This record gives sequence, structure tokens and C-alpha cells, in this order.
Amino acid sequence: MKKIEHIGIAVSNLEEANKLYSSLLNTKPYKQETVDSEGVVTSFFTCKDTKIELIQGIGENNSIAKFISKNGEGIHHIAFEVDDIIYEMKRLKKLGFKVINDVPKKGADNKLICFIHPKSTNYVLIELCQKIK
Amino acid sequence: MKKIEHIGIAVSNLEEANKLYSSLLNTKPYKQETVDSEGVVTSFFTCKDTKIELIQGIGENNSIAKFISKNGEGIHHIAFEVDDIIYEMKRLKKLGFKVINDVPKKGADNKLICFIHPKSTNYVLIELCQKIK
Repeated sequence: MKKIEHIGIAVSNLEEANKLYSSLLNTKPYKQETVDSEGVVTSFFTCKDTKIELIQGIGENNSIAKFISKNGEGIHHIAFEVDDIIYEMKRLKKLGFKVINDVPKKGADNKLICFIHPKSTNYVLIELCQKIK
Repeated sequence: MKKIEHIGIAVSNLEEANKLYSSLLNTKPYKQETVDSEGVVTSFFTCKDTKIELIQGIGENNSIAKFISKNGEGIHHIAFEVDDIIYEMKRLKKLGFKVINDVPKKGADNKLICFIHPKSTNYVLIELCQKIK
């Protein structure tokens, strides 16, 4: 893993959360992005070499709305940047980690992403992400 | 906030979690430390400029054991490094954030720390930490 690329936080109201995290982090989000394939809208804050991603579901049929309905708002995942997502997925599968999507998919912020099932990581949802060049 | 200093993960069995995160991150923990005042034992992994802290409670009368008994294992907090914890605590209190400990306390890894109540941060437990020189 190269670095922690971002921490994803599930929120119910992105507009309100944007204000709150702008105050907390003392900086404004540098972009907002809708990810249609995931049914979510996201906003990103820079914190030195890492990012905070706030994520709100659009409607109810998406992973974030389901997460909030089960757990409430809060930290949703940790994303690690990798150079070669296919290599890293293979490495982790061999070690017994359960990969949620077998083929990397397009995520927010121009990335190929893959999730590792939290049952194999002490209930921490891990995302691998690789920059799309 | 200078940077994300670490992400704290609550685990039931530190020895097992150390093995798992060594595989996941492809690196060994660089230290293990007991924090008597908090009743926890911690281990730290470097991930470029940030750290992953695994935390296990010692017995039942500590915040980690209580967290796990309520929520299960998982991400416990995000820690932000600050230059001046007193200044940052004052800034956040003025903005309406609820500081859990009014006076910074000694945490793991040679830090002064303070927690912000998750009710004021979309249910994300935030730690401020300042290096002790």
C-alpha cells in the first residue's frame, strides 16, 4: 500500500456536513462529485497528503443509505492507494482476504477501486484505489 | 489540522489483528505500547506519512472494550496532528464542537491528545494530537 489516499465518511446531509467539516478542518472542500454508478454524491477535503471524502447516498438504493440505516452516520471506509490494483487484489486474495468486486470498478476522483470485505479485516471496510492515468 | 496522524482501529485480539494487518499492509508494526492511563495496548503501522493504530482494551473498564461491546470491532477514531493543541481546542470550542477532555492528556506515541465528541462531528470520533517535544 502506497499511502492512505482518503477516509470515507457516510453522511445524511452533504450540505450540512460540508459546513461542519469546513469548520473542523479549517478548509473548504476542493470538489464535489456525483458517482452515478454508486448512487452517491461526494465531496473532498485535502488534509496534507490524504483526503477526507464525505459521501451521501442519493435516495435509498445505494450502499451509503443502507450503511446509515444500519449503523448511523460515521466512518465508512479507509482507502489505500496502490500502484497496481490487479496485483494487490491477487496478493490479498492469496492471503485469504475477501475481495468484494472481482474486477476493479470506476470510483470517484478518477480512480479504479476495489473493496475488501470487512469480515476479513476486523470489520474495517478497506478500499484499494489506483489513479487512472 | 496539519495532517491525518493516524487512524485508530478497535480490535478484540491485538496479536491476531497484528498478523492480519501485517498481511494487509505488507509491513510489520513498528512498535507496541501499553497506555496504562487509558487501559489499552496499542500497536502502530506506518503507511507513508500516516499511521494505523490497532487498539485493544485491557479487561473491560476502558473505552475500547466498551466501544467493541456496543459497536463491534472497527474504526474507532481519526487523529489529526496539530501544532498547538490548546489553540485548536479553543478554535473548535468557539465553533460549537464539543471537546471531551477540557485539558489535553498524555496519549500513546508521545502525544498530547484531546477528543472531540462524535455527536458534533457526524458521529466520527476525532482526536487532536500534538507531539510532545
